[in-house]
Amino acid sequence: MRGRIVDCRLPIVDLYRGVTSPSLGKIAVVGAGAVGSYYGGMLAHTGHDVRFLLRADLESVRANGLTIHTGGQTIHVPAHAHASTAEIGPCDFVIIALKATANAALDELIPPLLHEHTGLMTLQNGLGNEEYLAQRWGAERVMGALCFVCLNRTAPGEVTHIDHGTISIGEFRRPASPRVRALVDAFVEAGIEAKAVENLVEERWRKLAWNVPFNGLSIAARATVADVLGDDALRAEARGLMSDVLDGARALGHHIPHEFADFQIQRSASMGAYRPSSMIDWEAGRAVEVEAIWGEPLRQGRAAGAAMPRLALLYALLRRLTR
Amino acid sequence: MRGRIVDCRLPIVDLYRGVTSPSLGKIAVVGAGAVGSYYGGMLAHTGHDVRFLLRADLESVRANGLTIHTGGQTIHVPAHAHASTAEIGPCDFVIIALKATANAALDELIPPLLHEHTGLMTLQNGLGNEEYLAQRWGAERVMGALCFVCLNRTAPGEVTHIDHGTISIGEFRRPASPRVRALVDAFVEAGIEAKAVENLVEERWRKLAWNVPFNGLSIAARATVADVLGDDALRAEARGLMSDVLDGARALGHHIPHEFADFQIQRSASMGAYRPSSMIDWEAGRAVEVEAIWGEPLRQGRAAGAAMPRLALLYALLRRLTR
Repeated sequence: MRGRIVDCRLPIVDLYRGVTSPSLGKIAVVGAGAVGSYYGGMLAHTGHDVRFLLRADLESVRANGLTIHTGGQTIHVPAHAHASTAEIGPCDFVIIALKATANAALDELIPPLLHEHTGLMTLQNGLGNEEYLAQRWGAERVMGALCFVCLNRTAPGEVTHIDHGTISIGEFRRPASPRVRALVDAFVEAGIEAKAVENLVEERWRKLAWNVPFNGLSIAARATVADVLGDDALRAEARGLMSDVLDGARALGHHIPHEFADFQIQRSASMGAYRPSSMIDWEAGRAVEVEAIWGEPLRQGRAAGAAMPRLALLYALLRRLTR
Repeated sequence: MRGRIVDCRLPIVDLYRGVTSPSLGKIAVVGAGAVGSYYGGMLAHTGHDVRFLLRADLESVRANGLTIHTGGQTIHVPAHAHASTAEIGPCDFVIIALKATANAALDELIPPLLHEHTGLMTLQNGLGNEEYLAQRWGAERVMGALCFVCLNRTAPGEVTHIDHGTISIGEFRRPASPRVRALVDAFVEAGIEAKAVENLVEERWRKLAWNVPFNGLSIAARATVADVLGDDALRAEARGLMSDVLDGARALGHHIPHEFADFQIQRSASMGAYRPSSMIDWEAGRAVEVEAIWGEPLRQGRAAGAAMPRLALLYALLRRLTR
């Protein structure tokens, strides 16, 4: 079984439920792994015009479409599978679900998808991805989304949705806009919990408060969530790493209360021996998003005056262990 | 080749050179690995009455004695090899060179070696070993020594001395005494650089300033000394870990200047791709002295009010990785 599990379970706040969903126009999904296939596939299933850029799974999806196992059902989605973004052509929205470590590939992939008002929504982890898009194709195009979902890619073109699935969508350095609300409505109509966020970067720091310790210790200590929580010293360090992240966020003007970290530790207990995506990637020899999850938060926090000593050590270890 | 390399290269300060060496009486070496065989063997070579407690190498040493390759020479030492400390009987000095992780074995090994004035000298790493001996057999018996030496155990009963060799000897919580100076004289006469130290525990903290980062990162980052020094982030963390150690030492009343840490980083450059003993032990599946080198310094420093955040994270990782 080829598995890619995506980090799950952060709190759902201010759930936004749309009522009707207008057309989003033409949507491209770039990076159709488990995350891209699931979110894009669910939109296609409710009638949206979604085009998938595929490589390894191209022939399989062309022949059989996408298969999504979710909530006890199996959904077959006849999907538009494409070998290049030139073949897809200009779109209204581009959902980017590549690994952050593959961002350089976007330089060639994105231009054929653009018309004057194309919106670019990155569904990637960590910090720096919105900036990457904004620097190249203009900040006004850029949106970001965070997903909290457990998915397994169980075969070519086949995704098993295990748990959760909330997607939080926001504009890059702006409050939520009508296009964000339109995307939220479309996901809600597709059966996915979705919300619009007014401050995307603060949401990213909140998610980092979980990913930094648990994804990081999964590699540096070779520890599942249960392993971390079951070891007094590691649990204290997970909490300490969260404090470092919140210190960085605070230095940058995001006041996330320390009770949030305590809450994150507490709610992680129900996850059991969950293996964060970074652990699975690392053990499989795949790239780990070290810069997006640990390097960029450290650099941004330090530039703003936060010390973050635990994060600095963890980052140095991960950079070396994943090289 | 069975190799055990012992950490080397800390500065030689105030070298004490004796002129004549009186008899030390009867000496037992408990834990005759590379370190015990080398230091005990060199004393035996100059005529001291040294008894070696041996297990795996017993028959080999009984038949052939010890062989020490050092400084271009090969020294054969007809050694007294014993299977038990009861067979050795009461001694004037006991040199303890077991791994700190095996200290529980001392509870049975030491009593047969004691007469009223037997001195116990631990040659072990880290903190807590003098205390272990003092609690059981009285503080007045206890001395400690630090050795800075590169040794390989190349065959049963055979040690190859690669580089360095300084031994620093002190009393437990007292200034150096006549018996310490007698031991120093005996080692100097045997061709080994030796010095008496007035403040043993401060020497231990100085050695920890090197062992904590370089032995620790050798496991946590799987990095040789050259790997650490050649990676900007890891080098900065090695220096940060040294700062944590010096903060702990300072909280306990030992004022080791921060220039000492800079100096240690600088002088480590000449060590090249040196693999600290902990890395070799870990890779071979042998016990690593996690509590003596990381756990006990952390507990003592924290109890005195030092924060030591990097050391705390490193300790938590090492405890897990070596479990």
